Amino acid sequence: MIILDSESNVPLYLQLRTQIMEAIVRGELAKGDTLPSVRGLAGDLGINMHTVNKSYHELESKGIIEIVPKKGAVIIADTEKHASKKQYENLGEELRPVVAEGLVCGLNEEDLHQLISNIISKIKEV
Amino acid sequence: MIILDSESNVPLYLQLRTQIMEAIVRGELAKGDTLPSVRGLAGDLGINMHTVNKSYHELESKGIIEIVPKKGAVIIADTEKHASKKQYENLGEELRPVVAEGLVCGLNEEDLHQLISNIISKIKEV
Repeated sequence: MIILDSESNVPLYLQLRTQIMEAIVRGELAKGDTLPSVRGLAGDLGINMHTVNKSYHELESKGIIEIVPKKGAVIIADTEKHASKKQYENLGEELRPVVAEGLVCGLNEEDLHQLISNIISKIKEV
Repeated sequence: MIILDSESNVPLYLQLRTQIMEAIVRGELAKGDTLPSVRGLAGDLGINMHTVNKSYHELESKGIIEIVPKKGAVIIADTEKHASKKQYENLGEELRPVVAEGLVCGLNEEDLHQLISNIISKIKEV
């Protein structure tokens, strides 16, 4: 289900983190599901355990999974429930540099909305 | 003009890079202007030269400035000119993980558009 591109300039841990989030968006993974063990997933994907660990810890810090001793990485995100204040602020902080970059590169508000809509379609259609 | 927050969880080089882009958006810096020298800006802001260097190199890789020997970091971005194909694809790649995160956290397309619009107002009003 997860395909990483080692040629991409997007770091592997970020590709992995994003693909797990996108699988949740598409309903392939849902609240309560457990992700594969760090060792198992690293082995399956042929990547370093450290890379998987970094993805899992970022997902945990974003409130998307919880790492439960002896159980593993459990999904706690609920796509039906609106973001917490902290998650919303965090998103704003992550979006701001990219929005600034878009404006510097000559995109306007409408262009950015269009780009967001295109990305949402891509995420949902995979 | 640039105020960095050392308490923030946003890395300093990213804060600096973003604030330079936002100054260009507001027209406080324009195409042809030269940014301060790495040494000078690091001294003024009380940060490591390596941090300023990293910001400048990222701005260069995004086609926003050009580092010209003996002249320094010259702004080449033109907010009136629409993003190149490479810049547009790059923006999409940077936005996708944040959009996925927004959807996982229960935001819908409309919420994301609203968040983008709020960020644009903030950038322009400073």
